[in-house]
Amino acid sequence: MMGSTHRLEPLLNPASIAIVGASSDPARIGGMPLAHLTRFGYAGQIYPINPKYGEVFGLRCWPDIESLPAAPDLVVLAIAAPDVLPMLRRCAAGGVRAVIVYAAGFAEEGARGAALQAELQAYVATTDMVVAGPNAMGFANLNTQAHTSFASVFNTAPMQAGPGGVSLLTQSGNVCAAVYAIARRLGVGFSHFINTGNEACVDFAQYLEYLAQDAATQVCMGYIEELRDGPRFIAAAEAFARQDKLLILYKAGETDKGSEAVRSHTSALAGDQAIYQAAFRQLNIIQSQDFVQMAQLAHLADYRQRSAGRRVAIVTISGALGAILADKFIAAGLDVPTLPQALQQQLRAGIPDYGMVANPVDVTGNVVNDPGFVRTALQALAQSDAVDCVVIYAPGYLLDRMAGDLCAVSAAHSRLFVAIDTGAATTRERLRTGGVPVFEDIGVATAALAPFLLWQERRRRNRWPDLRHRPVPAPAALPHSLDEYRCKQLLARHGMPAAQERVATTADEAAAAADAIGYPVVLKVLSPGIAHKSEVGGVRLHLADARQVREAFVQVLASARACAPGARIDGALVGAMESGVAELILGVTRDPVFGMALTVGLGGVLTELYKDVSHRLLPVDEAMAREMLEELRAFPLLTGYRGRPPGDVDAACAAIAAFSRAVLALGSQVDEVEVNPLLVKPACQGVCMLDALVIPANR
Amino acid sequence: MMGSTHRLEPLLNPASIAIVGASSDPARIGGMPLAHLTRFGYAGQIYPINPKYGEVFGLRCWPDIESLPAAPDLVVLAIAAPDVLPMLRRCAAGGVRAVIVYAAGFAEEGARGAALQAELQAYVATTDMVVAGPNAMGFANLNTQAHTSFASVFNTAPMQAGPGGVSLLTQSGNVCAAVYAIARRLGVGFSHFINTGNEACVDFAQYLEYLAQDAATQVCMGYIEELRDGPRFIAAAEAFARQDKLLILYKAGETDKGSEAVRSHTSALAGDQAIYQAAFRQLNIIQSQDFVQMAQLAHLADYRQRSAGRRVAIVTISGALGAILADKFIAAGLDVPTLPQALQQQLRAGIPDYGMVANPVDVTGNVVNDPGFVRTALQALAQSDAVDCVVIYAPGYLLDRMAGDLCAVSAAHSRLFVAIDTGAATTRERLRTGGVPVFEDIGVATAALAPFLLWQERRRRNRWPDLRHRPVPAPAALPHSLDEYRCKQLLARHGMPAAQERVATTADEAAAAADAIGYPVVLKVLSPGIAHKSEVGGVRLHLADARQVREAFVQVLASARACAPGARIDGALVGAMESGVAELILGVTRDPVFGMALTVGLGGVLTELYKDVSHRLLPVDEAMAREMLEELRAFPLLTGYRGRPPGDVDAACAAIAAFSRAVLALGSQVDEVEVNPLLVKPACQGVCMLDALVIPANR
Repeated sequence: MMGSTHRLEPLLNPASIAIVGASSDPARIGGMPLAHLTRFGYAGQIYPINPKYGEVFGLRCWPDIESLPAAPDLVVLAIAAPDVLPMLRRCAAGGVRAVIVYAAGFAEEGARGAALQAELQAYVATTDMVVAGPNAMGFANLNTQAHTSFASVFNTAPMQAGPGGVSLLTQSGNVCAAVYAIARRLGVGFSHFINTGNEACVDFAQYLEYLAQDAATQVCMGYIEELRDGPRFIAAAEAFARQDKLLILYKAGETDKGSEAVRSHTSALAGDQAIYQAAFRQLNIIQSQDFVQMAQLAHLADYRQRSAGRRVAIVTISGALGAILADKFIAAGLDVPTLPQALQQQLRAGIPDYGMVANPVDVTGNVVNDPGFVRTALQALAQSDAVDCVVIYAPGYLLDRMAGDLCAVSAAHSRLFVAIDTGAATTRERLRTGGVPVFEDIGVATAALAPFLLWQERRRRNRWPDLRHRPVPAPAALPHSLDEYRCKQLLARHGMPAAQERVATTADEAAAAADAIGYPVVLKVLSPGIAHKSEVGGVRLHLADARQVREAFVQVLASARACAPGARIDGALVGAMESGVAELILGVTRDPVFGMALTVGLGGVLTELYKDVSHRLLPVDEAMAREMLEELRAFPLLTGYRGRPPGDVDAACAAIAAFSRAVLALGSQVDEVEVNPLLVKPACQGVCMLDALVIPANR
Repeated sequence: MMGSTHRLEPLLNPASIAIVGASSDPARIGGMPLAHLTRFGYAGQIYPINPKYGEVFGLRCWPDIESLPAAPDLVVLAIAAPDVLPMLRRCAAGGVRAVIVYAAGFAEEGARGAALQAELQAYVATTDMVVAGPNAMGFANLNTQAHTSFASVFNTAPMQAGPGGVSLLTQSGNVCAAVYAIARRLGVGFSHFINTGNEACVDFAQYLEYLAQDAATQVCMGYIEELRDGPRFIAAAEAFARQDKLLILYKAGETDKGSEAVRSHTSALAGDQAIYQAAFRQLNIIQSQDFVQMAQLAHLADYRQRSAGRRVAIVTISGALGAILADKFIAAGLDVPTLPQALQQQLRAGIPDYGMVANPVDVTGNVVNDPGFVRTALQALAQSDAVDCVVIYAPGYLLDRMAGDLCAVSAAHSRLFVAIDTGAATTRERLRTGGVPVFEDIGVATAALAPFLLWQERRRRNRWPDLRHRPVPAPAALPHSLDEYRCKQLLARHGMPAAQERVATTADEAAAAADAIGYPVVLKVLSPGIAHKSEVGGVRLHLADARQVREAFVQVLASARACAPGARIDGALVGAMESGVAELILGVTRDPVFGMALTVGLGGVLTELYKDVSHRLLPVDEAMAREMLEELRAFPLLTGYRGRPPGDVDAACAAIAAFSRAVLALGSQVDEVEVNPLLVKPACQGVCMLDALVIPANR
């Protein structure tokens, strides 16, 4: 078994557990794990340690770690912060493999705590021990009942009867407990209950890595305030995807208020939500912002081997309920396609005139009088290649009458069938074990189904991980001076189309350049120190002849010198006056967690106001570039909106992919690269950079 | 009692009920109401009618309506469509006051059904009877147990123990049953269960009118596919608001697919969602798109006499949970204000350093060790004028320890306290009866609380109903010819600011006008037949002198004549070349349900793409105009975005209110009025119409 060799194994699947600071009071943090270990039947060795007691919870209590008959796999430290480090040294001396530190009073509590944590971290790095926390609530392995937490939720939530495949991994102990309670209420069976605390030595990504290789874990529900190691997280998420496990993550810090509260909570700086969202999307991680939704998704994951996708057929006994469901599904990103004529005719054979056959399919209440038809209809929907998934919504007693047919059709076909019952069907469990998940509410069903079906679809098509592992472009050297011309040349080398342009250092050279390019032209001051050329009077448009170009050269340079007296001025750039359908902005910035992230939007002040931008981590190829453009609400402007000419979208996608290659080639030499605007010309006429900016890394 | 006199009283609160087509089978539509009437203990007289039986459900069965000993208040017709009309005549002859028609086969089923319904309608109009349906599932009065429906949900959902104050009013029987089942699961107590069917004689608004005056009804949950009588609906909703009753409405037809399904279901044309939304907002109706949310809101309504509003203090035992809650509340439109320093200091006295006092307030798990502090903290929050409502989120066992203090503080203060428990608190019922609603989930709590708190706030401030009842402006006569100049003059009479402009019929007049106005000027062709002047070359901007004006006059008229040969051309309009900060579009269209509706947005193609517009029914005053502008995501463009000069927002609001007055004065003479654009000049410099269009009613 792979799992047996992972470094975190003694932490999460220990063969023996010692509790330092053991208590006989099940309400105290030194007593609660012992209460759970004994109550829920942990089969490994348990060593309570406390010189004050001879026995706790019917177990022999040892005076100190040195007196144990054998080194335990895992030691839980239920002791105060100042005592932790000395005890860690004793654990290491005793051959302990893993330690959990409950104590608060470390990095979350000001400079003194941070220093203590740094000391702990430095010490642990010199040992072979795996140390979880500090400021952590501890763990639970619900398959082995290895309880090492002081989470009182195990006192109140009912314990699962059999093994479970869902693991919880959170950066907050209270969130861990809250989600566990909610999910247990919904019957979710758990594997691991993990909260990471301050992550001094083991971070979120390392636990995720463990869960990816853990045979028991099929689903992980995670809660993130801030990731410390983006690349490791990405690798762990890829491992999850490779094994067809479902990863559902809640990223906190949506609003400033939330971020502020999270910051003061874990002293973590919440990163850019939009970049997290992009990363989750590229890794086919389901992002959730609701605990119930997470639990429902974990439940749905049991059905992930059935074939499914975004095109849903809705079968109901009421036109109104069908319409409501269609509205919700479409709003959540699913498709409710009109069924093919042949299929409609097949359905019409058993559906009265006032019913509907197009999708939603309203079989009407009368359908129960013709049970043979139900099976025929479901079979037809199971076999149609016009849909990927079938949702049946009927009040309890009607669902009960269809349950037999539903189970039979579901058994005979791999297509996913889903039932919604807002009444009180008695066949719910029969349906669930028959391969048909059942929801009790339309809202909850939609919130779980939509991301699940989109996940299903993407897991067959997600190419980013492959793309990410292709060799990076050969590194490009950064020129010493980065004026607009050189920035464009640098990007053009990787395939970004530049406008026809020449550098002029005199008015005569400028006129000659314009003659060669053809009128009208634009003339811009060329200076590596001036980023905003218009603001210094450094741009002149629509120059119609050589005289105007000469005049403009003189005026532009004079104005720039006057407004930016310190800046080195290398002359002017003369270029063709280009016009197009729309202007895009492409930018890459360095995210502190995830690295280079690309942003695409339409240029202009409204794009910013409407936050109409799309983000991706690099690399981005042409297909992903198209996805990004299509995500923009302003995308119709590129495809011929209201009689305007359509733009060259293919060329724009190619340019975005070229931009990605260029930035990867520049690598760590740059902090930011921006093309603003990229002019999109009419269809088949290409695109071109009108301005570009490269900001070198702060070396 | 007012209720006793309402026309629908015999339908919804009958003293005696006859069932024509009675059956002894409780599964048949003629048996089910009898089963429910007898099982749930209806105290009035019940007359089963069917010549085939002597007795059903232990009741004497009568051969026909003529043989009854007394005229029943209400007759339920469980008979087929063709038999309905003759039976209605017999009911009228027998002195029956009200009838429910179950039968399908009317307007929802093609032309023949529509004709049958028209006949029914015409006949009923000649009688004094109130007739519900056809194609309806029937009603239930859960306070009197007057069951007149064949809804099987009463067989499966548990019957409430005592009286209820929530009424259901839906345009779909299946939705009525589905919401009832969900709400009963959540313990909601009902008054009326009403579904309107085809609304041949009694429409949604009339039922709503009944519920407004019904003493038992405190809350109405409604489901609308299409309103037939907008003004009556508005009046009924106003009556609801006047009596401080809560109205929660679900409007179907969000997407095309949904509308399509709804259309084929009830043969209703779903109106414009945005206008419904505007009307709901102006009437302080809570719009919901989730059955569970509706039920939770109905539950919250029990607490509506407590003082509450949008500024929420969050008290929790976990920084992470506080942050999550703050995020959700803010995203849902609530405020989580930073608490005043003095209050923070008060709280800090009992909260350790690693807790938070700013809001969210993280009292930390340690708080339970200091129970006196809990009460002090809650009291301080109950009295602070910096918040309107306090939400406590703690896992079950901690909530249990706070429950006593919570109830005590809630009893001593009118402020609304709300508890969220994702664990298993045993004090939930104690809290609820102590005036503290308890939610089991953060998502559900947010979905219910946010609209409820905003409703609370608006019910104190909603001025639209008053505004609506003010006298309308004196009618303005519509000139025969409506060219741009006359349209502007018409609107200017009501206070809309026009730019400085003159009409010229010759090139010389145009030059003279320009000289008088001052250069540069704009010259536009003046023709009542040409709406889109630019498209016929009918506009020239930036004219700098008299020569250019003369040339432009000739060219513009020639071009317009060439492009629009049939149009009457009255000359040209010469105006000052105005410039400003932003351009607005104001438009009024006639909604088929609600009448005149005003739309405000920023001009330009992106506004349309981003659907960044605000709607209101007329009349709109300056304060409402400001709300509309503030709703626009592009509003920052008017207030000085990124160094741009701020616009004259006051003048824009005044102009919008003037526009509303002008349109009301024009009244039924016009179908559409548009000012596009209204130029907003820098602060204190006003606004002016650059173009205007009045489309007369299709007389």
